[in-house]
Amino acid sequence: MEILQVEDNVRDAQLTLRVLKKHNLSHTVDVAHDGQEALNLIFGKDGRSGEGVVAGLRLVLLDLKLPKVDGFEVLRRLKTDERTKWIPIVILSSSNQERDIIKAYELGVNSYVIKPVDYEQFDLVISRMVAYWMSTNETPYK
Amino acid sequence: MEILQVEDNVRDAQLTLRVLKKHNLSHTVDVAHDGQEALNLIFGKDGRSGEGVVAGLRLVLLDLKLPKVDGFEVLRRLKTDERTKWIPIVILSSSNQERDIIKAYELGVNSYVIKPVDYEQFDLVISRMVAYWMSTNETPYK
Repeated sequence: MEILQVEDNVRDAQLTLRVLKKHNLSHTVDVAHDGQEALNLIFGKDGRSGEGVVAGLRLVLLDLKLPKVDGFEVLRRLKTDERTKWIPIVILSSSNQERDIIKAYELGVNSYVIKPVDYEQFDLVISRMVAYWMSTNETPYK
Repeated sequence: MEILQVEDNVRDAQLTLRVLKKHNLSHTVDVAHDGQEALNLIFGKDGRSGEGVVAGLRLVLLDLKLPKVDGFEVLRRLKTDERTKWIPIVILSSSNQERDIIKAYELGVNSYVIKPVDYEQFDLVISRMVAYWMSTNETPYK
């Protein structure tokens, strides 16, 4: 997978996939439905494998309110691990609370995007965001 | 100013302004031609003023190879100062050297973009980047 979307809301996850398909943003996208599943996908269940996954992963779209392990903890784990700290992470949350935005930046998130409610806005925001991070931004991982 | 462009190449600075105008990205843009000028504009010459400037500043486009104070040092100063650490900073450099990309991320840059040589690509990259950071991304500063 190139993009990991961590999203417990099935409808939002499907909407995102639909937008990417519509805009021909043909990247391999995987969906994790809670924070623990995201960590397992990236690091393996024992926390030591999953290097193959990490190698190809180029963007993480991360919701904050998630079952089991919340988005802040997933963010902290990814940004403090040498294997994953340079993978761009974008928070995609319905929260516009300043304390959430500050906490995410303190944990080293690259960008914070508020999930639009309106479909047309959702389409614009998701397509612009994915195009930016996958085609315009550079990371040390090639 | 809402956007500070730190760029010693006059032609590149002018090209950027032209692209923003063409795409109706009507933000107030200021240009600093070296790293010291950028720091003076943001923090004031005594390092303690300039709070009014910081309040409105929403994006820094930062070249790496700059006279007087280089881009890495400007980045380090902005990302370690409580007044400025959440302002999004995008490196806009012609360097595609992995060590430069890694160093920028280690210093906390939000994103790293390689300056395209071709004008059409330059137009696309700059307009997409500014639209993303000014309209899609959220910061704690409003």
